[in-house]
Amino acid sequence: MAGLSEGNNLDPWYGHYAARTTGLSASEVRALFAVASRPEVVSLAGGMPFVSALPTELVTSAIDRLMRERGPVALQYGSGQGAPELREQILDVMALEGIRGSVDDVVVTTGSQHALELIAKLFLDPGDVVLAEGPSYVTALVVFRSFQAEVSHVPMDEHGLIPAALRERIAALKAAGKRLKLLYTVPTFNNPAGVTLSWERRLELLEIARENDILVLEDNPYGLLYFDGPPPHAMRSVEKDGVVYLGTFSKTLAPGFRVGWALAPHAIREKLILANEAAVLSPSSFTQLVISEYLSSADWRAQIDTFRGVYRERRDAMLSALAEYLPKLSWTIPNGGFYVWLNLPEQVDAKSMLPRAVKQLVAYTPGTAFYADGNGRNNIRLSFCYPTPEFIREGIRRLSSVITGELELLDTFSQTGPLTRITAERNVTSPPPNLG
Amino acid sequence: MAGLSEGNNLDPWYGHYAARTTGLSASEVRALFAVASRPEVVSLAGGMPFVSALPTELVTSAIDRLMRERGPVALQYGSGQGAPELREQILDVMALEGIRGSVDDVVVTTGSQHALELIAKLFLDPGDVVLAEGPSYVTALVVFRSFQAEVSHVPMDEHGLIPAALRERIAALKAAGKRLKLLYTVPTFNNPAGVTLSWERRLELLEIARENDILVLEDNPYGLLYFDGPPPHAMRSVEKDGVVYLGTFSKTLAPGFRVGWALAPHAIREKLILANEAAVLSPSSFTQLVISEYLSSADWRAQIDTFRGVYRERRDAMLSALAEYLPKLSWTIPNGGFYVWLNLPEQVDAKSMLPRAVKQLVAYTPGTAFYADGNGRNNIRLSFCYPTPEFIREGIRRLSSVITGELELLDTFSQTGPLTRITAERNVTSPPPNLG
Repeated sequence: MAGLSEGNNLDPWYGHYAARTTGLSASEVRALFAVASRPEVVSLAGGMPFVSALPTELVTSAIDRLMRERGPVALQYGSGQGAPELREQILDVMALEGIRGSVDDVVVTTGSQHALELIAKLFLDPGDVVLAEGPSYVTALVVFRSFQAEVSHVPMDEHGLIPAALRERIAALKAAGKRLKLLYTVPTFNNPAGVTLSWERRLELLEIARENDILVLEDNPYGLLYFDGPPPHAMRSVEKDGVVYLGTFSKTLAPGFRVGWALAPHAIREKLILANEAAVLSPSSFTQLVISEYLSSADWRAQIDTFRGVYRERRDAMLSALAEYLPKLSWTIPNGGFYVWLNLPEQVDAKSMLPRAVKQLVAYTPGTAFYADGNGRNNIRLSFCYPTPEFIREGIRRLSSVITGELELLDTFSQTGPLTRITAERNVTSPPPNLG
Repeated sequence: MAGLSEGNNLDPWYGHYAARTTGLSASEVRALFAVASRPEVVSLAGGMPFVSALPTELVTSAIDRLMRERGPVALQYGSGQGAPELREQILDVMALEGIRGSVDDVVVTTGSQHALELIAKLFLDPGDVVLAEGPSYVTALVVFRSFQAEVSHVPMDEHGLIPAALRERIAALKAAGKRLKLLYTVPTFNNPAGVTLSWERRLELLEIARENDILVLEDNPYGLLYFDGPPPHAMRSVEKDGVVYLGTFSKTLAPGFRVGWALAPHAIREKLILANEAAVLSPSSFTQLVISEYLSSADWRAQIDTFRGVYRERRDAMLSALAEYLPKLSWTIPNGGFYVWLNLPEQVDAKSMLPRAVKQLVAYTPGTAFYADGNGRNNIRLSFCYPTPEFIREGIRRLSSVITGELELLDTFSQTGPLTRITAERNVTSPPPNLG
């Protein structure tokens, strides 16, 4: 990541930016991802849901009815809290994960990303600490940094964030005089790690947060997309006052609508509404009411089943391709969601390998993107949400060739000195097979 | 305005909020406006466009085509900068006000409100000063306060902000050691004042801003809604590096889509895109592409003409009702937009009169809402955008009765001491005539 508010003699406004812009940074791999979006590249990098699994007809019929019956309402400004009918329906969605909330405490936002931004704006002063899993969701890290907070990562294992490590970290940070504000967690089908926090640990984390007066920010975009049986209930299902819960329609319906929500303790949701109004006046009435119509007329639970089936098949394709092509490496086994977290050989740097991977027509996200502290050098996040099973298989095959090449390269390097461009490019593959 | 982060023993998170939340406040008149939204109340308070003047068919046919031809794109995440095809079309819209820009410098936002929020986030450190017209757009003031900036109002006359007053204010603030970051202006059909900045003054303001290294934030939601001939070209039409221009489809199409934009100097727009991505990942692909389809297939210029006609008729109704029912008062004469600014007799306090007005079934916005410094006590903003001409006329009739009653009340007060509840309610009208 490179700070963008560094000197730039082409910018006449250099020197005018707020101090917080030093935390606002462009990803170094952004340019590379532009290349990676070419159709011949198998991208295991993004987090785009496979929206083609949603029958267009379900959306268009909802819109037709909406415009016929409530056109002027859909086209008008709405409430800063969100449409009441949608907030009622959101309670039904959350009930699937054991949450019982009041319609008064739901605040609809422009995707759950905007709820994250608003909570950060409400709580974070410069120097405040946010505790987060290591690794953690990349754009949450960007948001926290943009309000000049520090992120302190707590290690995870296959059962999610480790409570003992959390206790230790809190004690150390408090001893250092830090102000701890939030515990940010993606407990279910974690992005990027793919693991799920066990029920026992959920209870333990809530207790630790209560003891230490830390607000839990439970971000749950993937919870309904389980493959092997339902995950543990949401943390919010057992703790009301200490948790802000974030949900979204981006993964169970479509991200193009930009509709998510926060379920917040009463006092917090008052401020959240004010912050939402300041930021956007009101979330889009149109997209909220389209979703409300969809939820009231379509079999949305069956549609989520359809998505589950699509992603389960892709998860399976990825796991079996990994077992076949990269048998010596290790990775997480997700029971839902979009991601597998892959451990590379220690000597391989995922970020420096990426240009060579793109050259070999496969893309991924380097692990360092998911840490605020430079960790993740030997990890990559693999997404199985968007490519077809055949493409996933081909992508992993290419990746294995990239990693093999990288190991040979390192070998050459250790024998002959600095890499040459020729060496770096010797593994370029022939044009990809037609996998369409 | 009451600060919400004041002590509240019902809020377990009191003490955890960021310092900036002291600037985040709920309007005292919010509860009253909930009452004022009852159908029997003529509301001259809001700024809701009359979306019923937009034929529903124009929207539904655009959506049908979009979903048929590009459904999966409309349902997916998009670019943090906004859809390229829409950004191209936004150049055509801005060309109507003399602006020539590059598609690379347009950033689509969730309404132009969100562009305001993002610019504030990028530029404002605590204690920074934003210069703004007095009066100024209420939710811009809320945004600036929410980033702990100070707003310094500069007086206006019927030709808009007064350049000499701006020079004086800048000199005084600089002498006081203040950091001046932005000049926020709604130059055309000002919200709330209704006046328009003359061409000569636009040039002079730009010169002053350049001399003093102040970025101009030109907010122009109403410029295309002129009644008596086009207003002067946008300030952005003659100054590229020193102006961030904000536009929106909320008034020329529909606010329910939440699509606006910023046209920013090159270096600034880079940061704006990053801030937009942090806040919402991407603006809604769906609503952006609906608008893009609408612009490419419907006669959108003719639709703006239709809106002009609707609002011109309502402006005329308001001005003639004011002349008839409140001949002793003075007000501004808007040549476009949504608002008239009314001067009350000096002894009348617009905010304390509001509950009695709502009791008499008419609502308005008190002038103090549009000042950060407590000014505007004797002013009210009257909106003519939403009610029909007949309702506007009836609203002004009721308002005149409220003001007359208020003057009598003050007279009674000055003779007999504190107001009694009975006195305050003696002017309650009979049920309103059917004006539908």
